[in-house]
Amino acid sequence: MLGKMLENVQAKTPLVHNITNYVTVNDVANVILASGGSPIMSAEPKDVYDITSICGGLNINIGTLTTDSIEAMFIAGERAGELGHQILLDPVGAGASALRTNTAVELMEKLNLTVVRGNISEIKTLAMGSGTTKGVDADVADAVTEENLDQAVTFLKDFAKKAGTVVAITGAIDLVSDGEKCYVIRNGRPEMGRITGTGCQLSGMMTAFLVANPDQPLEAAAAAVCTMGLAGEIGWTYMQDGDGNSTYRNRIIDAVYNMTPEKLNEGAKYEVR
Amino acid sequence: MLGKMLENVQAKTPLVHNITNYVTVNDVANVILASGGSPIMSAEPKDVYDITSICGGLNINIGTLTTDSIEAMFIAGERAGELGHQILLDPVGAGASALRTNTAVELMEKLNLTVVRGNISEIKTLAMGSGTTKGVDADVADAVTEENLDQAVTFLKDFAKKAGTVVAITGAIDLVSDGEKCYVIRNGRPEMGRITGTGCQLSGMMTAFLVANPDQPLEAAAAAVCTMGLAGEIGWTYMQDGDGNSTYRNRIIDAVYNMTPEKLNEGAKYEVR
Amino acid sequence: MLGKMLENVQAKTPLVHNITNYVTVNDVANVILASGGSPIMSAEPKDVYDITSICGGLNINIGTLTTDSIEAMFIAGERAGELGHQILLDPVGAGASALRTNTAVELMEKLNLTVVRGNISEIKTLAMGSGTTKGVDADVADAVTEENLDQAVTFLKDFAKKAGTVVAITGAIDLVSDGEKCYVIRNGRPEMGRITGTGCQLSGMMTAFLVANPDQPLEAAAAAVCTMGLAGEIGWTYMQDGDGNSTYRNRIIDAVYNMTPEKLNEGAKYEVR
Repeated sequence: MLGKMLENVQAKTPLVHNITNYVTVNDVANVILASGGSPIMSAEPKDVYDITSICGGLNINIGTLTTDSIEAMFIAGERAGELGHQILLDPVGAGASALRTNTAVELMEKLNLTVVRGNISEIKTLAMGSGTTKGVDADVADAVTEENLDQAVTFLKDFAKKAGTVVAITGAIDLVSDGEKCYVIRNGRPEMGRITGTGCQLSGMMTAFLVANPDQPLEAAAAAVCTMGLAGEIGWTYMQDGDGNSTYRNRIIDAVYNMTPEKLNEGAKYEVR
Repeated sequence: MLGKMLENVQAKTPLVHNITNYVTVNDVANVILASGGSPIMSAEPKDVYDITSICGGLNINIGTLTTDSIEAMFIAGERAGELGHQILLDPVGAGASALRTNTAVELMEKLNLTVVRGNISEIKTLAMGSGTTKGVDADVADAVTEENLDQAVTFLKDFAKKAGTVVAITGAIDLVSDGEKCYVIRNGRPEMGRITGTGCQLSGMMTAFLVANPDQPLEAAAAAVCTMGLAGEIGWTYMQDGDGNSTYRNRIIDAVYNMTPEKLNEGAKYEVR
Repeated sequence: MLGKMLENVQAKTPLVHNITNYVTVNDVANVILASGGSPIMSAEPKDVYDITSICGGLNINIGTLTTDSIEAMFIAGERAGELGHQILLDPVGAGASALRTNTAVELMEKLNLTVVRGNISEIKTLAMGSGTTKGVDADVADAVTEENLDQAVTFLKDFAKKAGTVVAITGAIDLVSDGEKCYVIRNGRPEMGRITGTGCQLSGMMTAFLVANPDQPLEAAAAAVCTMGLAGEIGWTYMQDGDGNSTYRNRIIDAVYNMTPEKLNEGAKYEVR
């Protein structure tokens, strides 16, 4: 069933406006293209109103905020809201600085978000003003494990309900909930954490999935998570002697490029709680 | 004959100042190095006067404009003009926003450009204030095909004459004209469109070709187009099971790195009209 | 012995705050991850105080300065100094513009730097207000060779003593000195110069080495230089027909990812003068 979500991306070539960090922006663009979407980047306040108007969705990533890009996020976000576009927030490093935390919280309050996607520390920060974000990677103390999974699912459903959006927490086990249902996803590999920006890539690609499947944000978000994780598994099978994280980065994007609805249906490992 | 253009790049190591977008900047730098040139990036108004002064050419790409980078484009462009440097404009997304269209038009008016290089939608926007730019990729409705090729050549010659520069339109069929002659180039592969920034890369590399061949801008621009397209063809022959757009990106730059004047002379597919 | 330095990076996962250029930032992040460290990027004045506070070291790279990023460098640098963090300066293009030269000189004066790492032209600029920087690559006229090695070592020791920091000059022969001792390192390959940002990558990774080995900055810096050079040698052994600088870039980062303390001890080629 999730394969249908990818099929729609490949059929519709959804145009995604990205206001994203300069660290991983190239990979974000290439993975959107790999999935079948079309990316455009703009973070200049004077440019984003027009740019977001011609797109179908907006991916906001706070990984390298500037005063100008924050202004652009609100301009683009409000305009995207007026047009009924899909809007995703990736709160990179929320909890690591006041600017990041406050910006993420304010974006959640003022914009009509479809999805918030982050690691567990970032989402905990948004939910409870706590979490123990250490830099841009989740703190191991926060990790979702088989042992605390029930608690994590309950936490996520509560937060998604309160926030009124779909929320996705990615890590060793990925969770995606709209407040009612929760996808528990077990695709992916731990080595993906040694590549910068697999989370940013997922957020960009997920926005393309949301645009192509506007009536099913929960399923679209879950399908994007499964696609990325499965691409990590498939990419790994092509790794050869001497390969490391840089080649693995390419192999994952390549695997997204070669993903089919059938492969996704077969390889997606999830349960719904 | 076009091989001689590449030979000069490899012999002279032309230094190219790039004011370019942060999406594809790394690939732009690597492809300039691959071709035999040397890149330097600076987009700060207080830095660009000095930086462009030590270079031989200036590559202006409006893919992610900011208020500051626009100011830097004019400062660098005027200085480069005073010094008789080669200047290339890549009007990324012209037509997609007022800021991009207006900036591109003003750069054309105020700077002494050697070449303008874009896709057909961007060039139509500059020529006619129309075109149907959808994001940063050319609209399929505008595409140059064998059917409308005569018209497209006539359009391009007229625009190049009016603009007083060489103009290059890249797509499935590439056209490069100085207003008198028009190179019609059939190198490249459609899969190049699934990689972000092959156009940006070409603009950076083309500037190196212009600097190394200052008296033959038309031939230098055509040689760069053939080099990029042929690299796309050669790179493709190295693609293996499981490879996708991310690996293809590397293979194309690799093929530029391994390009020789002889290979280019043999592989360039063009006619002059 | 240098292997121990790498072992500490892999054991401690040092968190490095990078204020770096947008050209090579993705590779900097991936190479820090490859070595065992954890990168975070922030160049916004309002964000850097918080971000640098949670890190162990600060990597300042002036490759694409902006008015804001310069302000951020001083804010972060002063805060990092208060906290006793390791601070590295990479004076990219010092000598190529007044802004770069002046910023690098002022950062040296005001911050409590642990290491300065650059090419010979950049370091000469800082030492003598001269050097013949041509863009971001060292001028061949300045190159350290076997013929002028004694002179270069003396120059470097004097400058490091005067600056009160460890100084690393990288090129065909690499030199690292604290004013007393000088490591003369002969790892690496000339083809590394055809990849953008191997110097930037080294600076980021070196900062991780410094954080993990706070009491041995000279040895940590030398170990990072050997790791990068040896990765260049190992990566080269995996190059295949058709590969070029883009694939080589990946192979070098991959080789860092697969580096072990044992391999480093065996492969490091250095003498201490």
